[in-house]
Amino acid sequence: MKQATFYHAGCPVCVSAEVEFAKALNPSEFRVSTVHLGEDSAQISTAERNGVKSVPAMVIDGNVFHINFGASIADLK
Amino acid sequence: MKQATFYHAGCPVCVSAEVEFAKALNPSEFRVSTVHLGEDSAQISTAERNGVKSVPAMVIDGNVFHINFGASIADLK
Repeated sequence: MKQATFYHAGCPVCVSAEVEFAKALNPSEFRVSTVHLGEDSAQISTAERNGVKSVPAMVIDGNVFHINFGASIADLK
Repeated sequence: MKQATFYHAGCPVCVSAEVEFAKALNPSEFRVSTVHLGEDSAQISTAERNGVKSVPAMVIDGNVFHINFGASIADLK
C-alpha cells in the first residue's frame, strides 16, 4: 500500500480538494491520512520537510502535489 | 460514476502528476480521461471553459484542481 498524506488548513479550497481528492484515491492502493495544519501546528515542520510549500497539498510516496495555489505554509506559522 | 478529466501538456511535472493522481483515483467511482493539450490543441477552449488556467489540472465533477503551479494555459496557444 502507498501512503498518501493530505495537508490542509481548513480553508474552503482545502475542504473541496479534500472531498474530491483525498477521498477519491483508490482504497486498495492508498492509505490516506489527513493533517489539519491549522489545528496541529506541530506537523508544520514535517510538512515542510516533505516539501510542502502551500496548502492544500497531497504527498504521495514522497511526491508533493500542491493544489490550487492555496495558502502559503509560512502563513500558518 | 464521476467523470474526472486530467489535462496536461506532456511536461515532467505533468507526467508525474498523471502517474500519481490520474491513475490513483478509485476506478469503481471515477471514469478518468486524459487530455494532452500539447497534442490536442482543439481541447484548449474546452479546458478553459472548464476553468483550467494552468496544467497539469484535474477536473472532477466540474471542480478544477490545478496541480503544482504548472504551465499557464495561455502558453499552450
